[in-house]
Parts: sequence; C-alpha cells; structure tokens
Amino acid sequence: MDPQIKTRVLRLFTYGMYAVTSHHAGANGAFLANWLSQCSFDPPLLMLSVENESRTRNFIEASGFFAVHVLASGQREFAGMLGRSGRTTPDKLKGVRWHPSPLTQSPLLEDTLGYLECRVRGTMPAGDSTIVVGEVVDAFLGDLALAPLTMQETGFKHFG
Amino acid sequence: MDPQIKTRVLRLFTYGMYAVTSHHAGANGAFLANWLSQCSFDPPLLMLSVENESRTRNFIEASGFFAVHVLASGQREFAGMLGRSGRTTPDKLKGVRWHPSPLTQSPLLEDTLGYLECRVRGTMPAGDSTIVVGEVVDAFLGDLALAPLTMQETGFKHFG
Repeated sequence: MDPQIKTRVLRLFTYGMYAVTSHHAGANGAFLANWLSQCSFDPPLLMLSVENESRTRNFIEASGFFAVHVLASGQREFAGMLGRSGRTTPDKLKGVRWHPSPLTQSPLLEDTLGYLECRVRGTMPAGDSTIVVGEVVDAFLGDLALAPLTMQETGFKHFG
Repeated sequence: MDPQIKTRVLRLFTYGMYAVTSHHAGANGAFLANWLSQCSFDPPLLMLSVENESRTRNFIEASGFFAVHVLASGQREFAGMLGRSGRTTPDKLKGVRWHPSPLTQSPLLEDTLGYLECRVRGTMPAGDSTIVVGEVVDAFLGDLALAPLTMQETGFKHFG
C-alpha cells in the first residue's frame, strides 16, 4: 500500500465537527471530535472514536456517560480551542457557557446547534483509539439557526 | 426524551456517501453507506455500521474483507441505486464499471473518487446494526477530479 494514496483517499471523507464532554468525580472533560457517527436506529446509538491518551476518555469510561454537541458554522475558533490537548489545557470550558446535565452530569454547552446525551453501551479497542458506543438518552436543540460546522470549513486535518 | 428533538439533532450530523462492497463464494454485495468514519491512525482503521439484515454484511463477515469507495458530487442517482435493498436488487453492479480486487476479491468500482480495501479486525453488535472495524490494507485514487458527495447534496435521509 502507498501510504500517501491512503491519506489522500481518507482526506476525501466528509466529517462534521462535534464537542464531546463528560464528567467524573468533580472534573470535566471536553474534546473536539469528528470520528463520530450514528450507528443504529433502534435503539438510537452513536459510535465515537476517542484517542486512548484522551483525558476525557477516562471520564467517559468511569462515569458511563457523555454528551455530543453539534458545532455551528463559524465556530472554527471554538473548535480549535476544544482541539487542544486536555493534558496542557485541562479547563477548556473556561469562558464557555455551559451547565451540568441533571441526568448525566456531563457539561452541556449552550452555544451549539444541539446536543445528545449518551449512556455508554460498550467499548471496543481500535488501534491508537477506543470506539465508544453510546445510547442516546436525551436530546436538546439550541437557539442557533446556523448550518453545522464541517471539517472542510475549519480546514483542520484529522485523518490519515 | 422527545424523539422528534432527538431526530432533529441527529439530522444536523454531517455525512459523506460511500459505496461498500464485498465478495464471498462467487457472489458480490454492494450497499450505500454513510455511517462510516476513520477510527484510528496507527494502524489505519475504519469503523462502519452495517444493518444486521444487510446481505453484504454476511459477505463481509464470511470473507473478512470489504472495500469502501468515496462517491463523487453528482453521483446522487448512482448512490440511490446502491441504496436499494440487496434482497430485491441483488445485482446492483449491473451496468457499473468494476473489477475484482486481486487481494480481497471485493468488487472495486471504477467511477468513484477513490477506494480503500479493508481487512476485518473485529465486529461489535450495535442495536439493529453491527459495527465492523476494518484495517486499511490497500488504497487507490480514481480519475475523477470532483468534490465528494455528501448526504446533504443527495437530500437522502439516514438518521433518527
């Protein structure tokens, strides 16, 4: 296999941009995700790939809950902030409007298009990452009437 | 949870459109996929959700191989044909230019932006579907110089 060709084909994949949050033992985690998709209608399930080194991954596995927020067109800067390492920027929610979920304690980010709260149904190792399957247990729409943010709009790279 | 709100949030997810093919015991399968994402850099892995009732799912599990093709802008009609049920339209490749992969025997569709051949690394039940994790073992770029086809361009619905 030519690794450059592999990367060029993977670059053709279309992705949205999402903020994933979770809470455990008094600490909040948040990260920028694009390796994410619905994976079942009934029950409604999402599949999410999380880097094994992610701080928030520990919170998701320990609490059994996470929230997925759909970012809006124009939120490239916000996305970039969420994309920083949680090890060097542990408080990514500073200056962000959010409230804790009464159900799952996950931080719910208010300035997004909408969010889904998920209960972890299973995990599966996947190379340098872990696939987390979550059942959607609650859903909210935000006030923003904008198109969703896409990876193409941000110009960010997370493939290869 | 309000199921209508859940559906409206899921509708905000961004998806590309892909043709997934596989071969087993002399028969070819092909279906239209959007619940698909890369899920690891090293090794390069994809995660793909396949409906449990899918005919091609049986071929993927039996052969241990599948191919993912990135469809191009303008291929809405081709996508719609691939989206038909394999039970009622078993020969979806009729009239389509393709050749069998020497490595995996998966049908490789020529009029696409590019394709990745994958070896199954694991599967996981996910409600009405199954998550298949595949390692990218070969990659090709097609001749088309077009933007990728998105679910938004097609106007198709596969969420909720």
